[in-house]
Amino acid sequence: MTNEIKTLIESTVGDTTFAVWFLIGAALVFFMQAGFAMVETGFTRAKNAGNIIMKNLMDFCIGTVVFMLLGYSLLMGDDIGGFIGKPSFKLFTDYASFDWSSFVFNMVFCATTATIVSGAMAERTKFISYCVYSGVISLVVYPIEAHWIWGGGWLSQWGFHDFAGSCAIHMVGGIAALVGAAILGPRIGKFDRNGKPKAIPGHSLTLGALGCFILWFGWYGFNGAAATTTGQLGSIFVTTTIAPAVATVVCMIFTWLKYGKPDVSMCLNAALAGLVGITAGCDVMDAFGSTMVGIVSGLIVCFGVWFLDYVLKVDDPVGAVAVHMCNGMWGTIAVGLFATDTAPENALKGLCYGGGFTLLGKQLVGVLTVGAWAAVCMVIVFLAIKHTIGLRASEQEEIIGLDVTEHGLVSSYADFAPAMSQASLSYTKDDAKSVTKVDKSTGPVVPVEKAINVESYTAEKPNSDGTPKMTKLVIICKQQKLNDLMQALEEIDVTGLTVTNVLGCGMQKGQPEYYRGAEVQVNLLPKVKVEVVVGKVPVRAVIDAAKSALYTGHIGDGKIFVYSIDNVVKIRTNEEGYDALQDE
Amino acid sequence: MTNEIKTLIESTVGDTTFAVWFLIGAALVFFMQAGFAMVETGFTRAKNAGNIIMKNLMDFCIGTVVFMLLGYSLLMGDDIGGFIGKPSFKLFTDYASFDWSSFVFNMVFCATTATIVSGAMAERTKFISYCVYSGVISLVVYPIEAHWIWGGGWLSQWGFHDFAGSCAIHMVGGIAALVGAAILGPRIGKFDRNGKPKAIPGHSLTLGALGCFILWFGWYGFNGAAATTTGQLGSIFVTTTIAPAVATVVCMIFTWLKYGKPDVSMCLNAALAGLVGITAGCDVMDAFGSTMVGIVSGLIVCFGVWFLDYVLKVDDPVGAVAVHMCNGMWGTIAVGLFATDTAPENALKGLCYGGGFTLLGKQLVGVLTVGAWAAVCMVIVFLAIKHTIGLRASEQEEIIGLDVTEHGLVSSYADFAPAMSQASLSYTKDDAKSVTKVDKSTGPVVPVEKAINVESYTAEKPNSDGTPKMTKLVIICKQQKLNDLMQALEEIDVTGLTVTNVLGCGMQKGQPEYYRGAEVQVNLLPKVKVEVVVGKVPVRAVIDAAKSALYTGHIGDGKIFVYSIDNVVKIRTNEEGYDALQDE
Amino acid sequence: MTNEIKTLIESTVGDTTFAVWFLIGAALVFFMQAGFAMVETGFTRAKNAGNIIMKNLMDFCIGTVVFMLLGYSLLMGDDIGGFIGKPSFKLFTDYASFDWSSFVFNMVFCATTATIVSGAMAERTKFISYCVYSGVISLVVYPIEAHWIWGGGWLSQWGFHDFAGSCAIHMVGGIAALVGAAILGPRIGKFDRNGKPKAIPGHSLTLGALGCFILWFGWYGFNGAAATTTGQLGSIFVTTTIAPAVATVVCMIFTWLKYGKPDVSMCLNAALAGLVGITAGCDVMDAFGSTMVGIVSGLIVCFGVWFLDYVLKVDDPVGAVAVHMCNGMWGTIAVGLFATDTAPENALKGLCYGGGFTLLGKQLVGVLTVGAWAAVCMVIVFLAIKHTIGLRASEQEEIIGLDVTEHGLVSSYADFAPAMSQASLSYTKDDAKSVTKVDKSTGPVVPVEKAINVESYTAEKPNSDGTPKMTKLVIICKQQKLNDLMQALEEIDVTGLTVTNVLGCGMQKGQPEYYRGAEVQVNLLPKVKVEVVVGKVPVRAVIDAAKSALYTGHIGDGKIFVYSIDNVVKIRTNEEGYDALQDE
Repeated sequence: MTNEIKTLIESTVGDTTFAVWFLIGAALVFFMQAGFAMVETGFTRAKNAGNIIMKNLMDFCIGTVVFMLLGYSLLMGDDIGGFIGKPSFKLFTDYASFDWSSFVFNMVFCATTATIVSGAMAERTKFISYCVYSGVISLVVYPIEAHWIWGGGWLSQWGFHDFAGSCAIHMVGGIAALVGAAILGPRIGKFDRNGKPKAIPGHSLTLGALGCFILWFGWYGFNGAAATTTGQLGSIFVTTTIAPAVATVVCMIFTWLKYGKPDVSMCLNAALAGLVGITAGCDVMDAFGSTMVGIVSGLIVCFGVWFLDYVLKVDDPVGAVAVHMCNGMWGTIAVGLFATDTAPENALKGLCYGGGFTLLGKQLVGVLTVGAWAAVCMVIVFLAIKHTIGLRASEQEEIIGLDVTEHGLVSSYADFAPAMSQASLSYTKDDAKSVTKVDKSTGPVVPVEKAINVESYTAEKPNSDGTPKMTKLVIICKQQKLNDLMQALEEIDVTGLTVTNVLGCGMQKGQPEYYRGAEVQVNLLPKVKVEVVVGKVPVRAVIDAAKSALYTGHIGDGKIFVYSIDNVVKIRTNEEGYDALQDE
Repeated sequence: MTNEIKTLIESTVGDTTFAVWFLIGAALVFFMQAGFAMVETGFTRAKNAGNIIMKNLMDFCIGTVVFMLLGYSLLMGDDIGGFIGKPSFKLFTDYASFDWSSFVFNMVFCATTATIVSGAMAERTKFISYCVYSGVISLVVYPIEAHWIWGGGWLSQWGFHDFAGSCAIHMVGGIAALVGAAILGPRIGKFDRNGKPKAIPGHSLTLGALGCFILWFGWYGFNGAAATTTGQLGSIFVTTTIAPAVATVVCMIFTWLKYGKPDVSMCLNAALAGLVGITAGCDVMDAFGSTMVGIVSGLIVCFGVWFLDYVLKVDDPVGAVAVHMCNGMWGTIAVGLFATDTAPENALKGLCYGGGFTLLGKQLVGVLTVGAWAAVCMVIVFLAIKHTIGLRASEQEEIIGLDVTEHGLVSSYADFAPAMSQASLSYTKDDAKSVTKVDKSTGPVVPVEKAINVESYTAEKPNSDGTPKMTKLVIICKQQKLNDLMQALEEIDVTGLTVTNVLGCGMQKGQPEYYRGAEVQVNLLPKVKVEVVVGKVPVRAVIDAAKSALYTGHIGDGKIFVYSIDNVVKIRTNEEGYDALQDE
Repeated sequence: MTNEIKTLIESTVGDTTFAVWFLIGAALVFFMQAGFAMVETGFTRAKNAGNIIMKNLMDFCIGTVVFMLLGYSLLMGDDIGGFIGKPSFKLFTDYASFDWSSFVFNMVFCATTATIVSGAMAERTKFISYCVYSGVISLVVYPIEAHWIWGGGWLSQWGFHDFAGSCAIHMVGGIAALVGAAILGPRIGKFDRNGKPKAIPGHSLTLGALGCFILWFGWYGFNGAAATTTGQLGSIFVTTTIAPAVATVVCMIFTWLKYGKPDVSMCLNAALAGLVGITAGCDVMDAFGSTMVGIVSGLIVCFGVWFLDYVLKVDDPVGAVAVHMCNGMWGTIAVGLFATDTAPENALKGLCYGGGFTLLGKQLVGVLTVGAWAAVCMVIVFLAIKHTIGLRASEQEEIIGLDVTEHGLVSSYADFAPAMSQASLSYTKDDAKSVTKVDKSTGPVVPVEKAINVESYTAEKPNSDGTPKMTKLVIICKQQKLNDLMQALEEIDVTGLTVTNVLGCGMQKGQPEYYRGAEVQVNLLPKVKVEVVVGKVPVRAVIDAAKSALYTGHIGDGKIFVYSIDNVVKIRTNEEGYDALQDE
């Protein structure tokens, strides 16, 4: 038997097997869309869940359309000067000889880039603007830089190495995310008036975690799809397992030490950070290299979240910048440090393995040039959108939630009672004031002078038996005013109150919305009921405090009800009546 | 080296690689069960979530059992007259030479057909009846028509083309869904007394969306599993990506134009519609053909949902008919329009590619005959069930929810407070009345004459200082009576009220249910508390209105509590007391 | 063409194709981590969701780290006396010739073993202790017994057969789960004072079900990954489909007959039970054998859950012991009964196929020795942890939930209102008393003598018109005291009450927690509001009953408010006033 036959057998086997695996890998990368959708939804608030789902769905679908029309040929078309591929319509005009697998493979990678951005800009971006910038990323921004790296462009000719896209996909997506989030500004309530960041917890950590597991699973396809030998694929699976595992352990230890408790959502981010970090060099590193990548990634993600929150004051609800941009850069550079020829099918050597600075230099140049391309493009895109159709939803829309304002979706979770969570309380009085300005409710505005009278308070008349009179006040108001009301009551020394979620029905009927073409009638609107019992504090003082906190002059400002109360017992101290209301 | 060797190498490689891929594809199709479960649960109400999960689980499991016993041999057994395969027990008697892969592959496709039906019949079908009809579909209905198409039957001999089952699976499942939903009748509250459809939003759009992503992911296996060359598989992946993406974009634009806002749940349906549409011709179409399929699918799904809601008045909670039946037909016919020999391994040509009407005619005949088979079979099956064990849950069971009535599952989400959503309010007074009739609560029924007295109301006596007396009434009643109560109060000019979800505990103890064999004791039952403050409206009028709305004569009708109130302040207008209660 | 060439072609094709499939299978097994995370979270309570997610994430990540360092070489290193593999650092020192695929494959299987344990010990295990024992399992316990079975150790040399790990993984994981859950003790409220088990429903059956579907999907990789021919793989897919399907159907019928209704969560467990049962013999059984395995598995899981609940009194929230331990043993033994040489690539024969007792005996010895190893190791590990860092969270932490106490996560579902579910009510007065002892709230403790006075009650003075006076009492207290309060009120013949979830704000400020490094301020704490209206029962009696039920002496014991009420109407009977409050 000749060697020729052996070679033919091996190459035929390899070609076919890995061609099928290439497509299976592409399907796994497609599945990562589900992962992104779950992570982004889970880490944000329920009132925007449908909007985020929709954005994740549409970036893939719009991306496919524009990638068909132009993106794919810019990426994979015949190279023009190392910069772009030659635009063509071969997908439509020459289907028989088209490279179908390549199209699908590049399409799902392209969609990943676009999807990364939506997380950082979640909960406040207009939907139409999202469709536009997401389309532009898939149409030109990604295809051109990916042409440099993978399509035969100047970086690929020059020896820059980014196997699965730390740079081409994650760093670029992360830079777009940073630029977008910065231009957009933070969500209402993310920073207090002193600029201190406040937590806005996501609405479903379990869905967020599921998304991370899906992403990790899909990442075996993401990193492995382009492998061509079983050895290479096996090694890629090893590095793709080690780096995120190590990153997560490091992050757990770090947050445990720094915040006193291991932070769940940060560890989920760290797993993704390790995956992003190993993506560029998954085929050229060994166990040591991927361990190092993991250690650094686990720290970078914590630092990145902190840096955005405390230094840049940029609001990134899901940590997209810390995960994708920071670790995308790190992973690309790490190739220049840890590439080793003990990895199968690889001849590259990084600094730590005696390869000198050559590869590291190329990697740095790649990071800088691709990063600059992404930054410049996205600044132009976002500013253009901002000054034409507008980038950000109105404050009113943001507070109410994009589900109902953008999609007519009254709730993505129609059967569950919403919480009066910290999230809904996390904007300040100043925020609330500014919101009032954009209130578009109908009905005549009653001037504030008429509504709010300031008077001097006198103590309540005592009961006929001489004991101080006690009074219960029930205040019904909008949820978004609760924080203001609580502050106002605290200022007049009301020390305790009880809050209940209720539904109110009055003249203020909701507008009809459509769900799958059928009308949704909303005539019960969510309200909060605040109950206060006072003895020493004059009833009038409470009424006036509530009025000044709640007044906007529009329908729906609420009502105050006043009741007599016969007795109060404080269980811990056995105090009754007036004494029971005085907190130490 | 001879060509003989080359050929042998290629065929051996292809056989083995695609045999393994065939099974991977089958596993992906199995995973679509998770997708269906999530879509169907997410798009329906929380009170039926466990029931829908159970149905999705059992259709696969019962389906496997009956498919083992008979279904598989009807499908793949030796052809008898082009109509059925020869029944056999080779699975048990001749395991060594059994075609294991074929069994698994056909099993998971069969289960898909059965699963489609459950969505359209969700929230009101008896569980036992579901088990029966689902078993019958997998036992005979699907195997026989699939034998025609794929098992060597008359359609396959004749040249009808349905590569992955637009017709054999989706259209048949969709027709069964339509027949079932029509015979079953709409959910209580889906149509108002004028027949106008009302929205009943699903309880978790995020799970519904996750299900869609899982389905799309699994569809690469669904459409691709039977591919035999890498070119064919690559092309299938291309068409399976383009059609749903285009359909979704088209649907987004269409709903945006028609309803003013892009509809999230309809776009999720549209993605599935595009996938169903491309299923029959995924291997014979090019990029243009799949684009056309996508455009039409994106419109058909909107039209189908509208047609069922507004014309047929058939209630399909998840859009199964619009997605699977309508697009299954369209996709099968589209093969006759857009088949092209530029698609790899394909020689078929459709009308638009110069193939004339031959193929189109065959496709139409296939749609009509298979459709007729499915319709006739399912009408017989559903009517037989309806007139023996019964098809529909009782109205009482439907209102309470199938989780607790069918499975003893008090809640699928035990830790979350249920909302008083629109959904729970979306049935009319007439519906509620009819429900009363089937109330099976224990205890003596107090006759209505004794309970409800009609009197003429006199105005309340004014307070001693001459101001009109104001009164607060608190009404505790069952959740399902809230809508009635609100209507009754509105008729006597009560203009505002506050609703709170509460738990009531009284003599009316719940029955014990079992969860995993351990008793669940329910002694707190969900109730609503409605608070009304009246001045002009006589207190007696409110009491009598509430009594006539709430009276059934059974335990649990509720109580009304009457309190004095000292003052009311309307924040917007600064009105107090009596004036504050008069809405303009 | 020589046979030599044919053989070479076939072996090359087989090697490459199944090498790639081996890795795809490993990725599917990794994805099972998502399945376990969803099952374990869904079947437990919302207040521990983040903790369970974190444990599932960390067992994989910590497991990877320790498996890299030692575990892998103990498993697959050169055999030492049939007992362990030779420890080595070849992963780091000799990467070029390392068996990458084997490492990944064994790693994901190892992580499965560790993950099984967390479900049974959920909702009450300290996080640090979890990290330790989970690490020890992956470091030595699993690698050593897996070396016996798969790494060239004595059982594999001897002919013991466990293809994919019924014994090596599931039984060992299940035994560790049983030992851990037994040493840990039941969750507060799982058993009443008579030792009768009470149901504690999970917080999301849909996520639990999704997890089961993911596990089943991943199981095709779990059982199939090591297949080496398409026939073998196809047969494995058949048995891996039949066994769980049959088990689920059997379980549905069994629970239907025994409990009157088909139990959803038990059927989900049954699917997993069937999968565990077929894992050892998936490659050596035919359709009949896998059917028998399924039938028995479907019954064993019901029996196992009952046995733990009613006989052992061990609390296993997710059924891990019944699913994995019981069916792991059953599946391993079943190989000795149903192995048949009609299964492809298999020569083993079990008892029922004429193979005699030889194989059965080996299987039994394997079960006993491996089981003993696991039991002894885990008793030592858990007792060592218990007596050093402690194994169980404090009762206070358990009642509040591990999310906030272990991870500073105020809620995994910040936007949803928590229910006053049965779960939160399911611990007894005695439990609550014992909890009081560990209350660590700050502030001076007021002695009980001062707070609770016992007096003889006199009837309320009648109103001036001679009708009995009616009074409304509103009691605000902690959620965990609700059950006590209800019992206390029932003892003094209060027959009805209304409970509302509210948020209370008072002097009792919450401690700051951190979410992703940003502070979460909690100044509204969840409370319940209990409303009682009494006529015959003296007001003082209610106050004193409430005080003795609620008093702990710490801040946050609550308040009682007393109001006059004008009238009460009972709708069903038309009774008013005093009469309306007397239940028959």
